[in-house]
Amino acid sequence: MSAADRESHGRGESWHPGEPPDGVCRAVSTEEVAAIVRLAAQHRTPIVAFGAGTSLEGHVGATRGGLSIDLSGMNRILAFRPDDLDATVEAGVTRQQLNTHLRDAGLFFPVDPGAEATLGGMAATRASGTNAVRYGTMRENVVQLTAVMADGRIVRTGGRARKSSAGYDLTRLLVGSEGTLGIITELTVRLYGIPEAISAATCRFDDIADAVQTVTTLIQCGIPVSRVELLDGNTMAAVNRHFKADFAEVPTLFFEFQGTRAGVDEQAALVEEIARDHGGAGFEWAAGQQALNRLWHVRHNVHYAIQGMRPGARVWSTDVCVPISRLTELVRATREDVAGASFFVATVGHVGDGNFHLGLVIDPADPAELAEAEALNDRLVRRAIAMEGTATGEHGVGSGKRKFMALEHGEGIAVMRAIKQALDPLGILNPGKVLPDPV
Amino acid sequence: MSAADRESHGRGESWHPGEPPDGVCRAVSTEEVAAIVRLAAQHRTPIVAFGAGTSLEGHVGATRGGLSIDLSGMNRILAFRPDDLDATVEAGVTRQQLNTHLRDAGLFFPVDPGAEATLGGMAATRASGTNAVRYGTMRENVVQLTAVMADGRIVRTGGRARKSSAGYDLTRLLVGSEGTLGIITELTVRLYGIPEAISAATCRFDDIADAVQTVTTLIQCGIPVSRVELLDGNTMAAVNRHFKADFAEVPTLFFEFQGTRAGVDEQAALVEEIARDHGGAGFEWAAGQQALNRLWHVRHNVHYAIQGMRPGARVWSTDVCVPISRLTELVRATREDVAGASFFVATVGHVGDGNFHLGLVIDPADPAELAEAEALNDRLVRRAIAMEGTATGEHGVGSGKRKFMALEHGEGIAVMRAIKQALDPLGILNPGKVLPDPV
Repeated sequence: MSAADRESHGRGESWHPGEPPDGVCRAVSTEEVAAIVRLAAQHRTPIVAFGAGTSLEGHVGATRGGLSIDLSGMNRILAFRPDDLDATVEAGVTRQQLNTHLRDAGLFFPVDPGAEATLGGMAATRASGTNAVRYGTMRENVVQLTAVMADGRIVRTGGRARKSSAGYDLTRLLVGSEGTLGIITELTVRLYGIPEAISAATCRFDDIADAVQTVTTLIQCGIPVSRVELLDGNTMAAVNRHFKADFAEVPTLFFEFQGTRAGVDEQAALVEEIARDHGGAGFEWAAGQQALNRLWHVRHNVHYAIQGMRPGARVWSTDVCVPISRLTELVRATREDVAGASFFVATVGHVGDGNFHLGLVIDPADPAELAEAEALNDRLVRRAIAMEGTATGEHGVGSGKRKFMALEHGEGIAVMRAIKQALDPLGILNPGKVLPDPV
Repeated sequence: MSAADRESHGRGESWHPGEPPDGVCRAVSTEEVAAIVRLAAQHRTPIVAFGAGTSLEGHVGATRGGLSIDLSGMNRILAFRPDDLDATVEAGVTRQQLNTHLRDAGLFFPVDPGAEATLGGMAATRASGTNAVRYGTMRENVVQLTAVMADGRIVRTGGRARKSSAGYDLTRLLVGSEGTLGIITELTVRLYGIPEAISAATCRFDDIADAVQTVTTLIQCGIPVSRVELLDGNTMAAVNRHFKADFAEVPTLFFEFQGTRAGVDEQAALVEEIARDHGGAGFEWAAGQQALNRLWHVRHNVHYAIQGMRPGARVWSTDVCVPISRLTELVRATREDVAGASFFVATVGHVGDGNFHLGLVIDPADPAELAEAEALNDRLVRRAIAMEGTATGEHGVGSGKRKFMALEHGEGIAVMRAIKQALDPLGILNPGKVLPDPV
């Protein structure tokens, strides 16, 4: 295998330096993964699962060398059951691949991180995206998993019933465990009917805090918007440049409403009223399916638009999430904090969930910029945790946020360590991720 | 402490024989629970958490003696945050107590097992009820927990953000662990706005399979009914007797629709059409709030109505749950199986989730009836698991369903055992529950 192959398997899409594995295996079945893990266990070789390589927190770095297991070849849709509104796929199936498969049946899978990630990787990081405010995250949308444990044992967690009280929730334990407790090789996910009516609109604001307050209010009113995304003026500038668009470069909310025709109109009227009350400029509707698709294409590719603002740069994407009542205050404090940053900073977020990202556009080879970004992120995370929030709403811990886990979880870290020790006593599964090193 | 006190703490509401603890402690704070657990750990004394005593699967039996910790005195609502749509309560708060507290704010907590259970007990058994089809179960509605672990350590799991990718999901691991991994002492739950409009209706069918097929169809169409409950002819007879009512004694669906006025009407019209297509007799609407309340009061107390069919009897309530596409077939096979039963059998279920209960009205002192009920339940559970379903949709495993866990989870049992061993190495937390004894 080539050095380039090892290199590409040791890094994601963020600022994190690559940590190439010693080797790359391409697995095409759960049994192959199990065989590889059994061998690795015999030789105490670290194993890092790899999907599409879209991680933002250094999840795939081979911190102690060893093998990368590339699951991207496990890309078969194993079962599609429209009557049960679920599908079983191999871990390497991507979200758009699945949705293309489903479209003719009038169904879709809602979880949509910006990147064209694999469903296995999305489950492993408990990913979400713009639809989470209505449909939940991978936590709510994974029905069952097949995973290879550290001893090579193949486990199928849960059944396909919509609910169960039968024992410990291994599905939810593996979702978000980032390949440190087991390697997810197959998963069953929930599907939903494509709604009768979908509309989307944008709304401009002079002050970002007013935009956030609009969202806070509509969530508190229980209005079931399907998407509500915030893009600040800098993000809109990046979008204009990347997509050759001509949005106003001011804080903007992107809304989507779903339901029956009457329901969509009802929701939209309520939300437009709330937005106006908070200084919003009124809705500009996406006219037709093509305009709607373009709007969400723009949103999904914001990461790359922001990165494009500076040649050779990488984006450090922060990912705090707080209770919705604290979001305006956190966004305000954060604006003040980044006002003097020496690099371009864009703010973009799934504000209906209380989650937003700063895109810090840095040169990762410049130690001063890295240090500045790190200090900024540190302050932001500490503010969010003090508000009963989290260091990471959807990107995961990887190697990048391990240092905040003790602050966020307190005594819970000891419980997590005990579980890790019990399920991976040799420490071969994605070492150096999620949990901080013992002190 | 009296023998009666010990006796009442060793049994729930089902046929399971009581297993009284050696003593009962009434704890009024997390710190007290922690102190008791630390002492118990020193003396290797088993500890069983106790709430309202409404368990149906022998969860509270002191299989190896030891202490019952009664948490019913921990009944304070610690925080109510309407802006975040959540509340933090002590484990002994009951669901109706919480809803009474919330009513004036226009909010409610949806998870509603029939019994007036404590929220701690509901979390521990991953309970659900009639609202799960729309709002999910305790799995989806617990935001964070405070729990005392087997070494007396107090852990607060998760934050209050709506989503997080920060490490292992200890909240979901403890939900449904039935006091075997930790004792839940406080929890934060999600709240929802009371909808603008609510309507309820009943619909009669000649054939129970047609009623089930109606529900299957509406779920597959993605119609967001808030409740859809099946009561067979025997159940309706029990209801008539217990409540002095005059329902037709035939298979009946109870529906509830929530939303805006227009949305409710839209849903109801669609569902009525589907019901008619499947031989339903048309809707009888509950006229007004009082009739609506009475309808759900009847549904919530069906367990007691069924038990009342035979003086001195107890109900063995089965609890299988299967993928919705298999439900009609399972209900049909089960009807044939129970046709020759020597005792009264009522069928009632949360059919929108694929979950239904047989109420087997038995004399638990009669070994022949117990054996017959056990054999019947065995066949039912095996059928459900063969359909990728579960032995228990919402009642939990307790001591009653341990024997099915290996069949249901396969290799997953080894993972569950490793977790139990890691988190409770002395085996003091609710021994003899959830996991089967090692063979």
